[in-house]
Amino acid sequence: MPILINLIPLNPTLISKIKTQAPQYQFVDLAEKDFTAADLAEAEIILGWSSKISEALKISHKIKWIQVWFAGVDRLPLKELADAKVSVTTSRGVSAPAIAQQVFGFLLMQSRSLQTSVLAQARSEWQIPDQLTELNDKTVLTLGTGEIARAVAHYAAAFDMQVIGVNTRGTSEAEFQTVYKMSAIDQALKQADVVVNTLPLTHATKGIVDANFFAQMKSSATYINVGRGKTTNERDLIAALQAQQIAFAGLDVFESEPLATNSPLWQMPNVLITPHSAGHTNHYNARIVAIFLKNFAAMQAGQGLVENLVDYQREY
Amino acid sequence: MPILINLIPLNPTLISKIKTQAPQYQFVDLAEKDFTAADLAEAEIILGWSSKISEALKISHKIKWIQVWFAGVDRLPLKELADAKVSVTTSRGVSAPAIAQQVFGFLLMQSRSLQTSVLAQARSEWQIPDQLTELNDKTVLTLGTGEIARAVAHYAAAFDMQVIGVNTRGTSEAEFQTVYKMSAIDQALKQADVVVNTLPLTHATKGIVDANFFAQMKSSATYINVGRGKTTNERDLIAALQAQQIAFAGLDVFESEPLATNSPLWQMPNVLITPHSAGHTNHYNARIVAIFLKNFAAMQAGQGLVENLVDYQREY
Repeated sequence: MPILINLIPLNPTLISKIKTQAPQYQFVDLAEKDFTAADLAEAEIILGWSSKISEALKISHKIKWIQVWFAGVDRLPLKELADAKVSVTTSRGVSAPAIAQQVFGFLLMQSRSLQTSVLAQARSEWQIPDQLTELNDKTVLTLGTGEIARAVAHYAAAFDMQVIGVNTRGTSEAEFQTVYKMSAIDQALKQADVVVNTLPLTHATKGIVDANFFAQMKSSATYINVGRGKTTNERDLIAALQAQQIAFAGLDVFESEPLATNSPLWQMPNVLITPHSAGHTNHYNARIVAIFLKNFAAMQAGQGLVENLVDYQREY
Repeated sequence: MPILINLIPLNPTLISKIKTQAPQYQFVDLAEKDFTAADLAEAEIILGWSSKISEALKISHKIKWIQVWFAGVDRLPLKELADAKVSVTTSRGVSAPAIAQQVFGFLLMQSRSLQTSVLAQARSEWQIPDQLTELNDKTVLTLGTGEIARAVAHYAAAFDMQVIGVNTRGTSEAEFQTVYKMSAIDQALKQADVVVNTLPLTHATKGIVDANFFAQMKSSATYINVGRGKTTNERDLIAALQAQQIAFAGLDVFESEPLATNSPLWQMPNVLITPHSAGHTNHYNARIVAIFLKNFAAMQAGQGLVENLVDYQREY
C-alpha cells in the first residue's frame, strides 16, 4: 500500500476527510513528530514541506507528489524537484480573500486616517484628523492579475474604484478595465492612485519595483506590497517615501524578514507595516485540503494534477 | 430681491454654481464673518446653521428654508422651527459612503488585527498576530436601513457577508436578506456577527442599545456605532465589553463628546475609537450643494422641497 505522509497539524475533521477520500493510501501522520529523510523517502505523497525532503530526494525514494502549505515556491529547490520528476502543488489562491481584504484594510486605514486614530487612542486623545477621503473614483493598478489581484479587483468594484492591471503578456481579465503588458507599465503607473504588488518572486520580477518605477507614480499615490519583498528595491522605496515622491506605503513583505529593528520604515508616518501576515486566515487548512483532494480525485481518474501545479519553467 | 445667506466656507466653484442657478436671489456670503440675528432675519434661505437663527426666529423674520450642513437634527430647536413654519433640509446621505467605508475600516482592522500591527509598528516590533480571519460568511445586522445602512449592505455583499436589518416597521429593502421590525430585534441579534448602529437620535431611539441588547448578542460579535452616541447606554456597553459578553466595539460616537479622558473605553484592547469623524469626507460640500440646488430647482418649479426635508413629527 503506497504511503501518504502528513507533516501539517490538521484538525481531526480534515484528517478524517483525507483518510476517507484516499483509502488506497496508508495515512502516516508525522505532524509535530520527529522524522528522518529516510522516513520521507518512503512516501509517494507528502502533505507539507520539510528541508529533509531535499535530503530524501538524494537517496532512493518513492516521492511523486508534494502538496506544500504555501504559495511562494521561491523557497523550494525547484531544479532538484524538476530533475527528480516530483510534482509540487501549492496553496496558491487559498489566501487570496485574506490578502485582498488586508489590502482594503490598508486602503481604508489610509483614507480614513485610522492609523492616526489608533495612536491617538493609545494616548486617550480625541484628535480629529483632517483630509479624510473616500475610495470612490480612485484607480487601482495591480501588478499581476492572479487570484489575489482578481480578489482586489472584485472588492475595488464595490467601492466604485477603477481597476487596471499589468501582467507578462497583457492578457485581458474580466474584472479589469485594461490590462497592460509589463513592458508598457509606464502607461499604467501614471494613472494609478493605488499600486498593489501581488507578484511572485522569479528571476523576472526580482527588484523590478525600483527608483524608476516610483518616479513614474503620482506623488499622491499609495504603494502596497503583498507579493514578495524582494520584488521591491527597499532602499529606493524608502527614498521615494522620504522624498514624498509617493504618498503612502502599506507593506506586508520585505527584502529581509523579519524587518530589521533599525529599518527607517518602522517609524515613517506614511507607512503601515504588517509582519507578512496578510495571507493568514482561519480558512487556510480547510481550503488547501480541498485543493489536495480535488487533485487527488483527478489523479485517480487519470487526469493528472489539475490545480495549483508548479510550472518549473515559469517558477510559479 | 429675496436674500440667500451663506454661512459655510465654500470654494469659489461651488459659490458660483449657487449664484448661477439661483439668480432670483441676492447671494450674501457671511461665512467666517460677524453677523447678528437681525442680519439672518432678512434672509429667505440660509445655508448653514447658527445658534443666532434661534434668536432670529423670535423677531420679525423672512426665513423660509434652512439647508443645514449636518444630518443629525437632534441639535436643532425642532419645535421652534416647526412653529415658525421654517423648512429644514439636511445633509442626510452625503456622508453615507464615508461612514460605510469607515465601518469596513473598523471590520477589516479587527479581522486582520491591524490595530495590533499599528501599535507593534510604533515599537518597531515584528509581532505576528494570531487568529487572523476574513469577513466572508459573517452576518451583519444594521440598526436602521437608511442611506448609511444601505451603503454598508452594498460593501458587505462584495465581501460575501449576509446582511440583515431592523427598522421601525420591518419594511423590506432590496439589499437586505431580511428586515425585522424593531419589536422583533431579538431574532436579528442572535444571528449577527456584526451589529452596525446607524440610528438617528430620537425619543424612540435614546438608550435602546443597553444591557438587555448586549445580552442577546453573540459573545463573538462586534458592535459598531456610527449613528448617535446617546442611542447607546455607554455604561452598559463598557460592562458588556469587560465581561466579554461581546468581543469588540468600533465607536465613532459617544454619549458625551469629546469622550472624557478618563473613560475606560480609551484603553480597552477590544475597542477602536474614532473622534466622530466617520462622516468627514472631502466630497461633503459639493454633495450638499448638489442637494440644495436640486431642492431649489424643485421649489422654483412649485414642487416643494423634494430631498432631505426634516419631518418634525418623526424628528429626522
